[in-house]
Amino acid sequence: MSQHKKLSVLISPGNWNPEPWVEGLSASELIDEIHVWPTEANLEKVELLLVWKPLPEGVVSRLPNLKFLSSMGAGVDHLLGDSQIPKDLPVMRIVDKYLAIDMTNYVMMSLMIYQRRYHQLIENQKNNVWGRLGYSKVKVGVLGLGALGSHLARQLVKSGFEVYGFSRNPKELEGVESYSGKDLNAFLAKPEVLVNLLPLNDYTKDILNYDFFTKMQPRAYLINVARGGHLVEADLIRALDEGLLKGATLDVFRQEPLPSDHPFWGRDDIIITPHVASVTTPDSAINQVLENCRNFLEGRPLNYLVDLARQY
Amino acid sequence: MSQHKKLSVLISPGNWNPEPWVEGLSASELIDEIHVWPTEANLEKVELLLVWKPLPEGVVSRLPNLKFLSSMGAGVDHLLGDSQIPKDLPVMRIVDKYLAIDMTNYVMMSLMIYQRRYHQLIENQKNNVWGRLGYSKVKVGVLGLGALGSHLARQLVKSGFEVYGFSRNPKELEGVESYSGKDLNAFLAKPEVLVNLLPLNDYTKDILNYDFFTKMQPRAYLINVARGGHLVEADLIRALDEGLLKGATLDVFRQEPLPSDHPFWGRDDIIITPHVASVTTPDSAINQVLENCRNFLEGRPLNYLVDLARQY
Repeated sequence: MSQHKKLSVLISPGNWNPEPWVEGLSASELIDEIHVWPTEANLEKVELLLVWKPLPEGVVSRLPNLKFLSSMGAGVDHLLGDSQIPKDLPVMRIVDKYLAIDMTNYVMMSLMIYQRRYHQLIENQKNNVWGRLGYSKVKVGVLGLGALGSHLARQLVKSGFEVYGFSRNPKELEGVESYSGKDLNAFLAKPEVLVNLLPLNDYTKDILNYDFFTKMQPRAYLINVARGGHLVEADLIRALDEGLLKGATLDVFRQEPLPSDHPFWGRDDIIITPHVASVTTPDSAINQVLENCRNFLEGRPLNYLVDLARQY
Repeated sequence: MSQHKKLSVLISPGNWNPEPWVEGLSASELIDEIHVWPTEANLEKVELLLVWKPLPEGVVSRLPNLKFLSSMGAGVDHLLGDSQIPKDLPVMRIVDKYLAIDMTNYVMMSLMIYQRRYHQLIENQKNNVWGRLGYSKVKVGVLGLGALGSHLARQLVKSGFEVYGFSRNPKELEGVESYSGKDLNAFLAKPEVLVNLLPLNDYTKDILNYDFFTKMQPRAYLINVARGGHLVEADLIRALDEGLLKGATLDVFRQEPLPSDHPFWGRDDIIITPHVASVTTPDSAINQVLENCRNFLEGRPLNYLVDLARQY
């Protein structure tokens, strides 16, 4: 492969470890130079920008040769507020098989812990108590039917749950009772457990608020595995204290790490996990980025593109 | 439907509640009389015997009109020692979609709790500690590839696990590295987590013993969701104390309820659940029994038959 058919890459990893990315990308014949921000080396050559944490204001304008940009994870909410990204620049995200699988597995775990009353079983063991508990079928609502939400909804159907789905635009999934657009309230009345997998944008920010909770089944259960910005945290506490909701499993928070004095920590009705539901594994994410590098170099359309104006 | 095309039923529920069975069966046009053991009413008319707890010695010989017998659950181990069952009597068991689904869901929960170190996350929450934990792919072995084991193995492949399977006779499952017959030791060396779903019989009784554990990967994890009789309980404690095994999740025990002074209760490395992995839901089990009643009345072959001599 000739020298000009290789791409120069700049990585802006934020608090992620860039090493696996540097290693994985440099093993490919498609990649020329790799630099990790902060750096001053050859910015003018950069053609591909990989971003977890947005670059400081003004840096993108110093990348005159930039051809496309990729989020290093499934979300692109960290890129939405970045006004320095040229509007016509192709932006891709990771739509990784394992991201969807890991997310589905995590939600399955949370649902089963809820359905089988696992925390009660743990308490029983501490007290040498057998305490056989029955279980019944659970109606689950999936809010957001993108790549992750659709994968989850399909699996839940196969796993014997009664599944409801909501997406902004109508979406048909076998075995899923789907709602869209203005039918949010009709959807919210159905499930006993609601799983949020919406993208975070201007339309969905703060969507999980007190008014929203009043539309749900009494004593429903919330699982938020999308973004902390979806949830008005004080409203969740109010809804729990008033008995509107029965409990919540939260993997994401407005501020991460969750501050050690946050009121969520001490509550029996909230299960906290530290943003681990689905973690991008560099290996498979890198493969997707390389797939698009090849597409770009060979003049084919890019995959996994995001419309930042549409916000998902 | 004419009067003679109806079946008389005797139920021997043991400590199960017979009510849902009586209710579900009596709603069917295929069923005539229903009696619950102990009873003396019309034993000579009984054509179908539903058994959870075997009838006392001598009772079956008082059922001259008996046409077939059904276990009330997936297992038939409770029938194997019952010498009063005529050798030519068709015996069916429950091969219920939800039994396999519920079992798979339970094992998925246990695996995820292991993979994501959920008990550590619970501890962290108690101490207001964020403590992000990574996770890696898990190699899972499924011991026994019958209806439940096959369903589990297939789902584990879809859920991104690396899956190994063992069955007495060779069995091909897509994506599963399968072993059979004399290759048990080769199989045991592979997985990091072993799930036992064997039937309990003379060949498999006490199979989970110290010698077996020495053939597994060092620090492997055991999930027993089949029968308590598979596990030599003192050998498990020895293997854990010696560090051969890392831990175990046990849903079944030699004596149930597990006695309150049993050494398993207090161990951090054993998770105990009270035989709830997969519980027969009467509704769907009854549908299977009725399906076979119809087959019998219309002269078609019965489904879900068990060979008691072969012991599965």
